[in-house]
Amino acid sequence: MNVFVIGVGLIGGSMVLDIQREYPEAIVYGIDTNEEHLKKALEIGVIQQKATFSDLKKATIVIISVPVDIQLEILPKILNLVTEDCLVLDVGSTKAQVCEIIKNHPKRRNFLATHPIAGTEFSGPTAAHQNLFQQKTNIICEVEKTAFKLQEKALAIFSKLGMRIRYMDAKSHDKHIAYVSHLSHISSFMLGKTVINKEKNERDIFDMAGSGFASTVRLAKSSPAMWTPIFKQNKENVIETLDEYIHNLQQFKKLMLQDDFTKIYDEMESTNHIKKILNGIK
Amino acid sequence: MNVFVIGVGLIGGSMVLDIQREYPEAIVYGIDTNEEHLKKALEIGVIQQKATFSDLKKATIVIISVPVDIQLEILPKILNLVTEDCLVLDVGSTKAQVCEIIKNHPKRRNFLATHPIAGTEFSGPTAAHQNLFQQKTNIICEVEKTAFKLQEKALAIFSKLGMRIRYMDAKSHDKHIAYVSHLSHISSFMLGKTVINKEKNERDIFDMAGSGFASTVRLAKSSPAMWTPIFKQNKENVIETLDEYIHNLQQFKKLMLQDDFTKIYDEMESTNHIKKILNGIK
Repeated sequence: MNVFVIGVGLIGGSMVLDIQREYPEAIVYGIDTNEEHLKKALEIGVIQQKATFSDLKKATIVIISVPVDIQLEILPKILNLVTEDCLVLDVGSTKAQVCEIIKNHPKRRNFLATHPIAGTEFSGPTAAHQNLFQQKTNIICEVEKTAFKLQEKALAIFSKLGMRIRYMDAKSHDKHIAYVSHLSHISSFMLGKTVINKEKNERDIFDMAGSGFASTVRLAKSSPAMWTPIFKQNKENVIETLDEYIHNLQQFKKLMLQDDFTKIYDEMESTNHIKKILNGIK
Repeated sequence: MNVFVIGVGLIGGSMVLDIQREYPEAIVYGIDTNEEHLKKALEIGVIQQKATFSDLKKATIVIISVPVDIQLEILPKILNLVTEDCLVLDVGSTKAQVCEIIKNHPKRRNFLATHPIAGTEFSGPTAAHQNLFQQKTNIICEVEKTAFKLQEKALAIFSKLGMRIRYMDAKSHDKHIAYVSHLSHISSFMLGKTVINKEKNERDIFDMAGSGFASTVRLAKSSPAMWTPIFKQNKENVIETLDEYIHNLQQFKKLMLQDDFTKIYDEMESTNHIKKILNGIK
């Protein structure tokens, strides 16, 4: 079993680490435009061999884990290079454009669109680790467009990695994920920006920051190279979530200006309901 | 040493747990309007005896850890009841109003205004645990208004609990803490609200939530009874931070509408600087 991982970062790297453990016969090849990442991935055993696109003809499985703009460029080329039996899967945070771009590709049935919800604020091969996907949701889009045998192969791997599978159409995925992931990243980045701007004049401000602040801004450590194309591809949905979020913040501010603290109490109390929702999310 | 804790929750409860360990001679008395909390605190050893305000005359130290509106009501009464040698300290998240309200009290020098930055989204006596304050910042306001001997007594305790001490005037405290704590709570609550509202029509949305979402909304589990009076007391500063935060979000949205993703990349990259700032915050 020849497994190719294109982009040796947190998600792709963690996936092939688990695959190496579960499939001792697997040989993992890494492809990356970042020569240092590739070297590091080899050094720490994330991959076993460096490779190039010309090697893809011998691939059994190709995992594409690159920023979603790069993915749109390389996916058709990859499909052109692999054999009829090869499974090509992606792990990107947006699904509509990638499904659209290859819908008429002669090897469409070799491709499976997935989104394992397992990202963190860390990136690169050193962030990769085993068991990242245990109990994590993996959303599979347009499963019916993938060859049955290749669906089966992918599900066997996902099952060994401990993933919970959910099926969804690509447009619904992009709409919903904007709320539960993309918006959180913007809220974190802008919170970080607001406080950093303030700090320029008030040097000691971060000495006062506690774990609550750290928690709300941790996503502001995320990679701009990964997140810029996500916001670009999911522009419409992200703007919708931003509009609603800004509206809710303005509403909260209005209640404060009106000294309506009874209503502010009620707002917070009804949102406490999030406790129940978050139980189960690690 | 008779230690009274008024409000047997996370902060007060954790403080007396550490005090019991460090001062075996200490007897810890608990006062709380919530009879169940008091019973629970006694049961799990957070306090050793239940007490009432009429017992305060025998107090060596009084720790006030109640919502900041209640504190304004009870602090003058407590000062009236304690002896000349008793240290009374509070742990509230706002400092200007409490300092203002007792500035002319005959026992002003018995009081020390503090803010240990150690809160979490959990509350009540069962949330209390040892070593909560290790390496945490404790901000002391208007230290010069407290009797020297009582300053000394308080600092000895804070040192045994592992706190890092910072001195600050009450108004600066309230201004800065609005940025690094109060705003984070509003951003979390409103993020939670935005997604919960969406979920009303889209049932499966939370199945897609990962650890990033959980991290940004975890403060939305916080107690409204504690946070409503904080926002009320710190209204002016909180509104200032909200204005800046909303402005930054609107600016981000504008860049998206203009398809200026180069600038969005730059915004995120410059905020990545938060990594360095957050090292050191647990």
